[in-house]
Amino acid sequence: MIIILKKNTSEEQVHLLRQSLTQKGIKLHESEGEQTHIIGLIGDTKSLDMDSLRAHPAVEDVRRVSEPYKKANRTFHPTDSIVDCSGILVGGGNFAVMAGPCSVECEEQITEVARAVKQSGASILRGGAFKPRTSPYSFQGLRADGLDLLRYARKQTGQPIVTEIMNTEHLELFEDVDVIQVGARNMQNFELLKELGKIDKPILLKRGLCATLEEFVMSAEYIMAGGNEKVILCERGIRTFETSMRNTLDISAVPMLKKMSHLPVIIDPSHAAGISWMVEPLAMAAIAAGADGLMIEVHNDPAHALSDGAQSLTPTAFDQLMQKVKSLLPIFDKTLN
Amino acid sequence: MIIILKKNTSEEQVHLLRQSLTQKGIKLHESEGEQTHIIGLIGDTKSLDMDSLRAHPAVEDVRRVSEPYKKANRTFHPTDSIVDCSGILVGGGNFAVMAGPCSVECEEQITEVARAVKQSGASILRGGAFKPRTSPYSFQGLRADGLDLLRYARKQTGQPIVTEIMNTEHLELFEDVDVIQVGARNMQNFELLKELGKIDKPILLKRGLCATLEEFVMSAEYIMAGGNEKVILCERGIRTFETSMRNTLDISAVPMLKKMSHLPVIIDPSHAAGISWMVEPLAMAAIAAGADGLMIEVHNDPAHALSDGAQSLTPTAFDQLMQKVKSLLPIFDKTLN
Amino acid sequence: MIIILKKNTSEEQVHLLRQSLTQKGIKLHESEGEQTHIIGLIGDTKSLDMDSLRAHPAVEDVRRVSEPYKKANRTFHPTDSIVDCSGILVGGGNFAVMAGPCSVECEEQITEVARAVKQSGASILRGGAFKPRTSPYSFQGLRADGLDLLRYARKQTGQPIVTEIMNTEHLELFEDVDVIQVGARNMQNFELLKELGKIDKPILLKRGLCATLEEFVMSAEYIMAGGNEKVILCERGIRTFETSMRNTLDISAVPMLKKMSHLPVIIDPSHAAGISWMVEPLAMAAIAAGADGLMIEVHNDPAHALSDGAQSLTPTAFDQLMQKVKSLLPIFDKTLN
Amino acid sequence: MIIILKKNTSEEQVHLLRQSLTQKGIKLHESEGEQTHIIGLIGDTKSLDMDSLRAHPAVEDVRRVSEPYKKANRTFHPTDSIVDCSGILVGGGNFAVMAGPCSVECEEQITEVARAVKQSGASILRGGAFKPRTSPYSFQGLRADGLDLLRYARKQTGQPIVTEIMNTEHLELFEDVDVIQVGARNMQNFELLKELGKIDKPILLKRGLCATLEEFVMSAEYIMAGGNEKVILCERGIRTFETSMRNTLDISAVPMLKKMSHLPVIIDPSHAAGISWMVEPLAMAAIAAGADGLMIEVHNDPAHALSDGAQSLTPTAFDQLMQKVKSLLPIFDKTLN
Repeated sequence: MIIILKKNTSEEQVHLLRQSLTQKGIKLHESEGEQTHIIGLIGDTKSLDMDSLRAHPAVEDVRRVSEPYKKANRTFHPTDSIVDCSGILVGGGNFAVMAGPCSVECEEQITEVARAVKQSGASILRGGAFKPRTSPYSFQGLRADGLDLLRYARKQTGQPIVTEIMNTEHLELFEDVDVIQVGARNMQNFELLKELGKIDKPILLKRGLCATLEEFVMSAEYIMAGGNEKVILCERGIRTFETSMRNTLDISAVPMLKKMSHLPVIIDPSHAAGISWMVEPLAMAAIAAGADGLMIEVHNDPAHALSDGAQSLTPTAFDQLMQKVKSLLPIFDKTLN
Repeated sequence: MIIILKKNTSEEQVHLLRQSLTQKGIKLHESEGEQTHIIGLIGDTKSLDMDSLRAHPAVEDVRRVSEPYKKANRTFHPTDSIVDCSGILVGGGNFAVMAGPCSVECEEQITEVARAVKQSGASILRGGAFKPRTSPYSFQGLRADGLDLLRYARKQTGQPIVTEIMNTEHLELFEDVDVIQVGARNMQNFELLKELGKIDKPILLKRGLCATLEEFVMSAEYIMAGGNEKVILCERGIRTFETSMRNTLDISAVPMLKKMSHLPVIIDPSHAAGISWMVEPLAMAAIAAGADGLMIEVHNDPAHALSDGAQSLTPTAFDQLMQKVKSLLPIFDKTLN
Repeated sequence: MIIILKKNTSEEQVHLLRQSLTQKGIKLHESEGEQTHIIGLIGDTKSLDMDSLRAHPAVEDVRRVSEPYKKANRTFHPTDSIVDCSGILVGGGNFAVMAGPCSVECEEQITEVARAVKQSGASILRGGAFKPRTSPYSFQGLRADGLDLLRYARKQTGQPIVTEIMNTEHLELFEDVDVIQVGARNMQNFELLKELGKIDKPILLKRGLCATLEEFVMSAEYIMAGGNEKVILCERGIRTFETSMRNTLDISAVPMLKKMSHLPVIIDPSHAAGISWMVEPLAMAAIAAGADGLMIEVHNDPAHALSDGAQSLTPTAFDQLMQKVKSLLPIFDKTLN
Repeated sequence: MIIILKKNTSEEQVHLLRQSLTQKGIKLHESEGEQTHIIGLIGDTKSLDMDSLRAHPAVEDVRRVSEPYKKANRTFHPTDSIVDCSGILVGGGNFAVMAGPCSVECEEQITEVARAVKQSGASILRGGAFKPRTSPYSFQGLRADGLDLLRYARKQTGQPIVTEIMNTEHLELFEDVDVIQVGARNMQNFELLKELGKIDKPILLKRGLCATLEEFVMSAEYIMAGGNEKVILCERGIRTFETSMRNTLDISAVPMLKKMSHLPVIIDPSHAAGISWMVEPLAMAAIAAGADGLMIEVHNDPAHALSDGAQSLTPTAFDQLMQKVKSLLPIFDKTLN
């Protein structure tokens, strides 16, 4: 951490600042130039509050020079983490496709889609039971009944299931869910993250719509700090000024997250653009950029889906996509799991 | 709602689309131009899912022409709502200042600040007990103990208290809190909003960092749809590209929210910029733009605050600010409560 | 400037880096911690290219700690600059209102508006002759003829005129224009800025739609570095995610620009929101935040304006606004010029 | 175009609106619902100014339903355009790599890099002579001398050259340049675009940092409206909140631009992230998403480059990248030109 001192600050103020820092066991290295006087802080600065330092009368600004995350940091864990999702591995060369409807709607729908995506090569079944919707008047998901239908579909096809949790109070209901998803709007629901840190189950953490990558990794760190290191990061599009599509896929997030962290990184091209015909080029780009998996919405009747129809593939379109996925993966040294 | 049809779509597809819409009781008005064929939908279109419509093979795009919110909509409630916060009125010409520390830290701190801000004219005491922090290694608030200290301070000064809730499971602890705050990061924690819709207590809803104003009002609508219409909207800065301050105050939100909705709108200039010397000009601008109140951070020792020191005013600076607030309010026909 | 070294970089690489820096007359101060090794650079670092430094094999990152602007910097010029616009002063307590139509359309329109805004208290006449339009099919302005009409209006009313330049090749045509405006889209048209630095005339520089404040001040620095220090900064709304208005007024820019620089700062509330009924609250907020002036669009027949009708005030509405401006200015120690 | 009328507007006002529209030869189709009354406009609405319509007292809002661009529109030109850059084709299955230094620095540098990139498979030499720099104190390019050096390098290697123009006054100097580049900061320098519309030479148009795709295509339309249809679109990263890299590559722009327009689309991964190690994954993603070419910065000594060293590849790294480019292209049915 570096402190930039105010110009014309009194020597007494600087003295008091030095004192308060050294009392906390921090060593100081100062550089005084013509324009600027800076103090480098050496030691464990994680306990220091940057904003309080900024409030000190002698301080102009404070900058961090090392990352604030530790358990998720690749520096301390150079090899790729591999997350085991009830037998399906993600990361470290293992590529997984999670596919299924945005919302679980009925037994027929979920089992039909589950069978179709399995046959095409998806290894994990996705489906929303608790649905975060912008409007209170929109379909809110089948909730507990939706989880039952997912379990039923899993029994039929044998695929592990991934589904979104929205509240710590529902944790019990998710006990036998294989992978718990945290949605973009809950990326900084810290109370939820803390609870998920206490369980032993893979967590699929989606990036918030305007979160920086550091904030994203810090949310993973929340889960890991609690003891649960099975975190999969999912980029699903960020908010930009563009109006021709719902969100903008941040493809650079893949290599950058992999530099910052050892955790697996997957891409959700369906939510990224919100348009079904864009799923294929974005999925191809995701693989080419180094992603460890894809999450794709598939619906047997998109025009009558209760949510997100515009971005859902039909089972036929999904099958064609999977052919291309299968032929591209080996070029990037990935194995479809 | 308006449907724009694809160019060169088959008449049969359009026929099927018309049928599925009229079966839902929607009336259709069509306009066919040289370049575009559009269908206007007349009737209650709230039940229609725009994304599923977009998935229809004949549909190019779908646009909404009326607002998706109803209870919060000024069209159906032309007069300003006034929210009663345990005797302190907010809205409709009533201006309230909520002041106090970012985090409740100890009895001495909270009572000292409470007395100081009351004397300067703040009518509601703010203080964080549950703290949403980006890092799991930062101070997370005194939690239940913090609520106890707030109650203790309230007993000393008689001010109503406002404090943030982060989880539905904590609702019981907030039973005798006067105003419950929903933080920016939880603006779209829909499960929390639904629960707050079931209680009879003012809710201070903060705007998310990258939320549009419509999304913000929709989150208020979630609370109101449940039956609790006592919602105060709070603009607290949005995320922009600017790096010289933490967030950017969206002053235009004040007149625009007041056009969209009848709910009171307050401004938090402390979080907006994250810099104490900017609080005064932003607070002045807020009053001039028509805000119904201010939320301001005050700490007796900002340089040693456990959180957000850089943006906190000292009690002396706050007192000076309040002198200016008091002299500006009458010009804008507001009464300090 | 501070260099953060890569972890595990070789001592030889660091040695070469030190050598290349000291050869440029830079003094080095190093701090080596457990996690980080940083080098503080002391001396004139303006000549160093940060990106090339980042390309050095031993370097992880480079951060600047002092501002890259000098002539515009308040540190070296603590008092407010006052810019003389053909007799109308702007800055240092002097407040000026520039008003007129978006586009000059005909003699009758411009003289009618000029007389009306003068009578209401506007001291400078604005009007576009060269118009930057997103579409090549939109009205592009009367160009040279528009400048003639502005001159004619000036003769009638005696007000100085401000109008936008779009190309260095037009500079001759602007010879007797009182204030030359650089539009938001040309804020980083560096060739234009350089040419404007060579003349002796006030420049009204508008902030780009997604420019940071530092970039904005750097564009002023371009003009000033050429010798022309008569620059007025104008905030006119930034691009955000909000769709209910055209742009978002960054009111915080006023106090922050005034901290960074000694140049006058004015606000254009007409372009900021693009909606006429929002002009008044935003203009009030601008004054309250400390602005040195306003730029406001007025049209005698907004519904038939050739551009930007939606944001133009009628002369009557402008007159009402000016009454409020006049009553608010003394409270903020400003004099209407 | 669709007009949404204000609630409770007078029938007389609506009558006047109808009259003014039909006088312009527009046909009207009205739909009156419980909540909304809308008028669909049929005919050539390009001449209508949406903002002036919005200023009409009866109008709540105006929405466009057809694209405002015509010459660039794929609807009217379904097949891919192929742009001939002095013999090197771009678009329609033809893939071109443009490579070279950010700035031309000296004869040795440019010829060395030109030879290296040619040998690795780049068909067009890039190099900046006129450099847009945020700071007036940074290296501004060798200007006319830089163009001479590029011509010299072209003579040595036979590659066409692409270089940036910043001002209409320099057009003469660019007479024998093969491809003229318009930089991101000049994407809406409409006077420059108009002049480039009058010449017969390929224009490489870079997307502005916060431009929407529609605005981007509209800038191409400016050039094409003037008669020059040889436009290549280049996505080079947009500004987002991310601070770990310079800009964020908008990979979705590739498929979306190709849906909107028939023009070729290339990607500049060097500027997008501003970090050399990210060039490869982003280049791979660009190909996978369907791009028609790449623009890549290569420097023989990045650590001593006069600009943008951090993002430049060494000739060796570029050669390795080209091996991967060559092996990926056939999978996506592209031929390296």
